[in-house]
Amino acid sequence: MNDLIDVLDIIGVIAFAISGAMTAIKKRMDLLGVCVLGIVTAVGGGITRDVLLGNTPPSVFKNPRDVSIAAVVSCLVFIFMIMNASEHTKNPSEKFVEIYENILMFSDAVGLGAFTVIGIDVAKKTVSDYNTNTFLLIFVGVITGVGGGVLRDIMSGMIPYIFKKHIYAVASAVGAGAYIVIDNYIGRNTAIVGCSVLVVVVRVLAAHFEWNLPKIKYGE
Amino acid sequence: MNDLIDVLDIIGVIAFAISGAMTAIKKRMDLLGVCVLGIVTAVGGGITRDVLLGNTPPSVFKNPRDVSIAAVVSCLVFIFMIMNASEHTKNPSEKFVEIYENILMFSDAVGLGAFTVIGIDVAKKTVSDYNTNTFLLIFVGVITGVGGGVLRDIMSGMIPYIFKKHIYAVASAVGAGAYIVIDNYIGRNTAIVGCSVLVVVVRVLAAHFEWNLPKIKYGE
Amino acid sequence: MNDLIDVLDIIGVIAFAISGAMTAIKKRMDLLGVCVLGIVTAVGGGITRDVLLGNTPPSVFKNPRDVSIAAVVSCLVFIFMIMNASEHTKNPSEKFVEIYENILMFSDAVGLGAFTVIGIDVAKKTVSDYNTNTFLLIFVGVITGVGGGVLRDIMSGMIPYIFKKHIYAVASAVGAGAYIVIDNYIGRNTAIVGCSVLVVVVRVLAAHFEWNLPKIKYGE
Repeated sequence: MNDLIDVLDIIGVIAFAISGAMTAIKKRMDLLGVCVLGIVTAVGGGITRDVLLGNTPPSVFKNPRDVSIAAVVSCLVFIFMIMNASEHTKNPSEKFVEIYENILMFSDAVGLGAFTVIGIDVAKKTVSDYNTNTFLLIFVGVITGVGGGVLRDIMSGMIPYIFKKHIYAVASAVGAGAYIVIDNYIGRNTAIVGCSVLVVVVRVLAAHFEWNLPKIKYGE
Repeated sequence: MNDLIDVLDIIGVIAFAISGAMTAIKKRMDLLGVCVLGIVTAVGGGITRDVLLGNTPPSVFKNPRDVSIAAVVSCLVFIFMIMNASEHTKNPSEKFVEIYENILMFSDAVGLGAFTVIGIDVAKKTVSDYNTNTFLLIFVGVITGVGGGVLRDIMSGMIPYIFKKHIYAVASAVGAGAYIVIDNYIGRNTAIVGCSVLVVVVRVLAAHFEWNLPKIKYGE
Repeated sequence: MNDLIDVLDIIGVIAFAISGAMTAIKKRMDLLGVCVLGIVTAVGGGITRDVLLGNTPPSVFKNPRDVSIAAVVSCLVFIFMIMNASEHTKNPSEKFVEIYENILMFSDAVGLGAFTVIGIDVAKKTVSDYNTNTFLLIFVGVITGVGGGVLRDIMSGMIPYIFKKHIYAVASAVGAGAYIVIDNYIGRNTAIVGCSVLVVVVRVLAAHFEWNLPKIKYGE
């Protein structure tokens, strides 16, 4: 029954761990810092979700799987960078920085999609009458989706993606809204797969084409 | 019965949304970032309060009113700035910056006052024997009052007002303490109105006269 | 029965309040900012722990003791600095900065040790079958231990110690693991004293000998 969500959870954990580890490397943290930021990014959204829904202690505390996966993935990212890219990182070319940022953006988008969907799914299961409260479901989905990345960015001293990057929150909200429609009219499994993919597609397209909303130039 | 708190909540949401949106514009976020920061500032304190009191999911999740108001207000701030002040923002004069900062300070003060009072009120209702625990009531009031602004500042990469600005936390604590006295001896409605106004007055006076506590000059 | 944990709690609160106050002074906050950061650092880890375990409202809200101690200690640090070190702080010599940073590191280490142990102890008491879930106990211990310092650093605009400093998270995890072994085979009191000391020793040795894990030099 829950297999699909379990698979999605593992995909999300891996993707967010990669984005956390790569951010930590960029910020010149050592191997331990890289692992810690990988773990925080991977489990931060889920902990936030469970605290908000009153599921305490959060599920990630009850089972070492997610933390272990995030730690291993972070170490692998670190080892890969040491072995394959140490020349590039010392004196990164423009090309290298671009590829690095693209992988970071893509892994973040996959995590965003996976955790948005998991957030809604958990919210629906927590209390039955949530089914009727679309607003709550979407809100929990978006917070779960963006939570890990927000923690990652705040803890590494940056303004979170969600405030700066191409329609980040909208990608998550669109996916969350679509989930509820598809779940109602087609089915849960289609909603799970379709909406996580939808979030990634919207976010990657937005980043690629640099879809931006208008901005006020303050002070320049 | 709850009408007065409802009115105060709407006032607080509008005020904090304005302060969040204006901070986001200053930090050159786009329209979506402006809305997200407006929402985070407006609902952040209340979510923190509900999580600390064990009211999960937080009330703001159950009713789209506050989030909707915050989003609309943030957009209106953005549109107003585009239409009336885009010349000023590009090359802000000292005068413009001063007015901008004063509106920001004032809207933040109104939010601080409103949410301090709402925080105590919710804490009192949550468990009856809280009535006897003055410390808990004041603590929850202050955290609810300052929570939205702390999130706003951390997420936009600044050291929160509460650590830097003229007796910020004291204004909230004074109002919280006064609430409990007035509520006991005069009545709830007087406490609600009187104390939210008191917080704003103390905070605005402190900002205007630059009341500062002593400081140690480290490294200069 | 709980005397030992109470003593440890007071030690931890004092130590973290010192580290928070000293960080605030370094960041040129005024007396109120110094007190607020001292309090946040001292009670932040415990609040995080209680929210994660569902103990709401957190214990620190129910009893003004910890907040009062943290406020008094922060003020004492401030007064001491004004009276004994105001010459040094204006134009700090290399020697002064080194001593300052060492006291900061040591008080942070004592808080880390105390709260790691308290975190496990509270987690064990909260639900009986936690006894069997070693992972949950260690995780809660580490989060309680590092929580106050993470909040302190984020709120003062720095990347938290946990990501940058010599095996910070490992010191806490080692102590947490040792607690569970000693508690099982020798006894609770030995575990409480032994493991808080162990965390401090590991952390101080790591800082003194600058034990570092490898790092990737990105961009230089």
